[in-house]
Amino acid sequence: MKNIQNTIDKVYYECLELKQKGEVASYIPELAKVDPNLFGAALITSNGTIYGIGDYQKKFSMQSVSKVCILIQAILDSGHEKVFKKVNIEPTSSSFNSIANLELKEDNKPLNPFINAGAIVCTSFIKGDTSEEKVQRIISLIKNITGNDDITYDKNVYQSEASTGSRNKSLAYYMNSTGVLEGDIEVILDAYFKICSIEVTCEDLAKIALSIAHNGMNLNGFSIFSSIVAKELRAIMCLCGMYDGSGEFALRVGLPSKSGVGGGIMSVSLDNDGMGIGVFGPSLDSKGNSYLGIAFLEKLTTELGISLFE
Amino acid sequence: MKNIQNTIDKVYYECLELKQKGEVASYIPELAKVDPNLFGAALITSNGTIYGIGDYQKKFSMQSVSKVCILIQAILDSGHEKVFKKVNIEPTSSSFNSIANLELKEDNKPLNPFINAGAIVCTSFIKGDTSEEKVQRIISLIKNITGNDDITYDKNVYQSEASTGSRNKSLAYYMNSTGVLEGDIEVILDAYFKICSIEVTCEDLAKIALSIAHNGMNLNGFSIFSSIVAKELRAIMCLCGMYDGSGEFALRVGLPSKSGVGGGIMSVSLDNDGMGIGVFGPSLDSKGNSYLGIAFLEKLTTELGISLFE
Amino acid sequence: MKNIQNTIDKVYYECLELKQKGEVASYIPELAKVDPNLFGAALITSNGTIYGIGDYQKKFSMQSVSKVCILIQAILDSGHEKVFKKVNIEPTSSSFNSIANLELKEDNKPLNPFINAGAIVCTSFIKGDTSEEKVQRIISLIKNITGNDDITYDKNVYQSEASTGSRNKSLAYYMNSTGVLEGDIEVILDAYFKICSIEVTCEDLAKIALSIAHNGMNLNGFSIFSSIVAKELRAIMCLCGMYDGSGEFALRVGLPSKSGVGGGIMSVSLDNDGMGIGVFGPSLDSKGNSYLGIAFLEKLTTELGISLFE
Amino acid sequence: MKNIQNTIDKVYYECLELKQKGEVASYIPELAKVDPNLFGAALITSNGTIYGIGDYQKKFSMQSVSKVCILIQAILDSGHEKVFKKVNIEPTSSSFNSIANLELKEDNKPLNPFINAGAIVCTSFIKGDTSEEKVQRIISLIKNITGNDDITYDKNVYQSEASTGSRNKSLAYYMNSTGVLEGDIEVILDAYFKICSIEVTCEDLAKIALSIAHNGMNLNGFSIFSSIVAKELRAIMCLCGMYDGSGEFALRVGLPSKSGVGGGIMSVSLDNDGMGIGVFGPSLDSKGNSYLGIAFLEKLTTELGISLFE
Repeated sequence: MKNIQNTIDKVYYECLELKQKGEVASYIPELAKVDPNLFGAALITSNGTIYGIGDYQKKFSMQSVSKVCILIQAILDSGHEKVFKKVNIEPTSSSFNSIANLELKEDNKPLNPFINAGAIVCTSFIKGDTSEEKVQRIISLIKNITGNDDITYDKNVYQSEASTGSRNKSLAYYMNSTGVLEGDIEVILDAYFKICSIEVTCEDLAKIALSIAHNGMNLNGFSIFSSIVAKELRAIMCLCGMYDGSGEFALRVGLPSKSGVGGGIMSVSLDNDGMGIGVFGPSLDSKGNSYLGIAFLEKLTTELGISLFE
Repeated sequence: MKNIQNTIDKVYYECLELKQKGEVASYIPELAKVDPNLFGAALITSNGTIYGIGDYQKKFSMQSVSKVCILIQAILDSGHEKVFKKVNIEPTSSSFNSIANLELKEDNKPLNPFINAGAIVCTSFIKGDTSEEKVQRIISLIKNITGNDDITYDKNVYQSEASTGSRNKSLAYYMNSTGVLEGDIEVILDAYFKICSIEVTCEDLAKIALSIAHNGMNLNGFSIFSSIVAKELRAIMCLCGMYDGSGEFALRVGLPSKSGVGGGIMSVSLDNDGMGIGVFGPSLDSKGNSYLGIAFLEKLTTELGISLFE
Repeated sequence: MKNIQNTIDKVYYECLELKQKGEVASYIPELAKVDPNLFGAALITSNGTIYGIGDYQKKFSMQSVSKVCILIQAILDSGHEKVFKKVNIEPTSSSFNSIANLELKEDNKPLNPFINAGAIVCTSFIKGDTSEEKVQRIISLIKNITGNDDITYDKNVYQSEASTGSRNKSLAYYMNSTGVLEGDIEVILDAYFKICSIEVTCEDLAKIALSIAHNGMNLNGFSIFSSIVAKELRAIMCLCGMYDGSGEFALRVGLPSKSGVGGGIMSVSLDNDGMGIGVFGPSLDSKGNSYLGIAFLEKLTTELGISLFE
Repeated sequence: MKNIQNTIDKVYYECLELKQKGEVASYIPELAKVDPNLFGAALITSNGTIYGIGDYQKKFSMQSVSKVCILIQAILDSGHEKVFKKVNIEPTSSSFNSIANLELKEDNKPLNPFINAGAIVCTSFIKGDTSEEKVQRIISLIKNITGNDDITYDKNVYQSEASTGSRNKSLAYYMNSTGVLEGDIEVILDAYFKICSIEVTCEDLAKIALSIAHNGMNLNGFSIFSSIVAKELRAIMCLCGMYDGSGEFALRVGLPSKSGVGGGIMSVSLDNDGMGIGVFGPSLDSKGNSYLGIAFLEKLTTELGISLFE
């Protein structure tokens, strides 16, 4: 393995020279305010050493990256069987907020836990009678994994999500009408919006990714979730983690990953006894994935030779 | 024209002998309680004479028949242009509560005002800041047309609709997310549920139908809506009035009509200087139309030779 | 009824002043050669008097207008039951050559006989082992109705259709794979291409329309098809005759009609003991209907007050 | 690594005890004749040692497993750019012969090279003016990889495919109508049917898989295709290789694989300097994948710990 810090630096500066494409997510007003020039990355190795560059300690909103944590907590709280009775695990060529498949597919179930519909169902399986209880369980999970006690959700982003969350409401009520989603829909949606608004840094994402590489264990050696769940996450992230851009991403990068429209991407590597990577760049491509984030990961995996498919 | 009362009686008793098929709507619990054996019909001629049979003065819930009144009031309150900028006027082969087309069609607009999505958009164009104001405008409209001051909505049915209205919420929030539906969504939905719960008799439906035949004029000669709107209603009812069963209905019956899952059907005839027909039978076929209602109308139009396509 | 020739003339010249929109069909190369400035119309009254204007005796290719004749002949040759076991009669909001519904609808059947898929199925129900036998049956039908012994199909247009007919092949083979279309697919398709290439004039179309108004009788008083079929045609033409523009057409024109991408429209009126109308203008709107043809019919039905919904 | 022969034997006999589910493919009559009790597997290690069990030297028809060879040859003959300009590389939740997406997706392109539509497009990029020339290029490719000079296609299966290939014709002509597929469609389809009918053994599949693990090199050390193509194949096989069952397969097995309705599955492992696996069991699950084949691979990867996601 090459010198990691040098490699990260080199790749980072190559990306900076790219003519910037993509646009900051605008459908959530609060996200549109984020500086499009931010760019950072962090990589954590098996022994816990952190390599960072650029804005890697800058906080940003998890958005869909949180879907990984939602799935972990749903399984911890309600068990595999209950969760996967309501959510399939197949990749999809439709966009993350598509509703047509919920009607056209015979079983009306979301295709996987990493599109909005699937993550909303998973949120219903997180314990808690109020949205605050549910979001606090996710925040605790992230604290337990990262050791970062500062984790919280951004109230402005949450308000912005909630006030522009019509598409997610539509998905939730549709699934309620077909019996796929049960419980207090407004509580579930409110929890979902809060969870999407949780703030993390590239360093936090790298640590979560490392726990997935390390079969559910955090840096202190505590088992936060089972190795079975960790293996499943790696598979589902590989096939479904980048929305309808998962296929191209597998060819270009080849790491189990999850992106969010906040500009973050979290990637898991099993090489070198496990590594975790977090990248952040708020300008998005047409499928909602960080433009610079993918460019960085493509160059990095090529340099380090760590694609799953290498 | 044959003796109308005799014809109605004959057709009615022929229908009674049909082996009853279909089932009372069950997805709205309050509707499931309706006696499946109820059956009535009323026909009003141009001069106001009413011919009735069976349970023709029994009240039932308008449900989708109200979509005709919603469209009238929307145009009265906001004008053609505004309404038809947001709702198309094309028939559809999808079911009345389908959501897939809202995503798959490029303009995201409901295909016509007589599917749920279209009627919800029309409800947004009815004046009123509260759901009560909106429903009262529809009730006034019906009172003005029918002269029946007893018109009101059934609070139990309304509660039942509201508490099981997830699919309609899904449609509304979807359209809100694409900019097709604007305003306070919960107020619009609440109004929609109340309007669906308005109670009428076959006689009331016949009178509304007559006003559509009479270019918007009620029995007292007052113009309630314009002849242009009346003509449009006749066309849209003919093409889109029976959900995705409109084609077969045109062949079997051939009158501009609108059905509801409460078991009512309202039909307009331009023969004999205009006639209005209301039928009620709560058992529904697979497309949500009154089984006995269609049978009655098929026999009646055949006997009287009043199909548009005759 | 106003003086018909005067009305036709007036409406014709008003249309000529319209700033021409639309484009001649280009996907069939031979059709793209047609002069976009051609424009003609003919109306035939109950007693056989013909009123014509402009290029009303100019031959053009029937294209989808032939779907009406295909349906008549299919029913004559194989009977209602067989035909409607394989083709539904519901209008559709999808375009005339859409294939998605064949997969997404549970029964895999074409939605109606006036979209390509439906007409291809109907062609399979026309007697004949060769495509020539099948097309000759349609040509005979048209000769019998119109008394015009010159009817033939245009071999250049046919060749052009056949060599660019991939979409129709796709529809046919799809239906063959689901068991909806049986027989020698290439023969059926070849017949379909030939039938689409049959040449007619506005006068011919008017005469066919009149036979539909006259319950299947031609001008000499011979019954060519049954009154039941005639009534069905009027209903299906009203709901499905203008592709996915049928709703708007019902409001603007309100006559059972069938259009073709050759620029022809054939319309049936039951007023004045029956009238038939044929219009021709090769520039098409976005849905494949004659731009000037619809304009002419809209003005004409308004002037004469003969909309079904008037 | 455990003793491979012992592991294979153990897993094989465990699978034999499974209550047999699934059914032999019946839509291609010739395939329906295959003995459902056949079951075999072969694994080849990096140095060329072959471990086999059961019917591992029994010939069977490649069917969709050949899509991998088609993609290789298409790229060899026409280059990446040309091929991927016409075929996407995204997984899909639709079945392997679905046509709806070709219409509903804006670019009309097949979602990936491993569904029928995509493989037909790739076949058009294989050199050759006749179907025989095209199929011989694939046969040569397989001979070059496996060293097996007996490779040929089964003429009975080919005839059976060709005579029941309506769905594939439909896909091909649809793509021709949108400009995605060019050339002589009947030649392309004929080649596709012949290629699907190529006969191989588990041993052959294992060798092809090994060449994919070995970056395109065959057992004699000759480079048959580039390492870039090999890496791409591993990624696409992982995401799209098992039709709409790819997600569940990734969790259960976790190896880049390709299945066929002939009952074969070919799997690539990068562990132990590369291994290739071929399995054969003609009874299929509801998604068209070998029931016993998946069971075998699940147990094998668990025993050997060679899932990509382990």
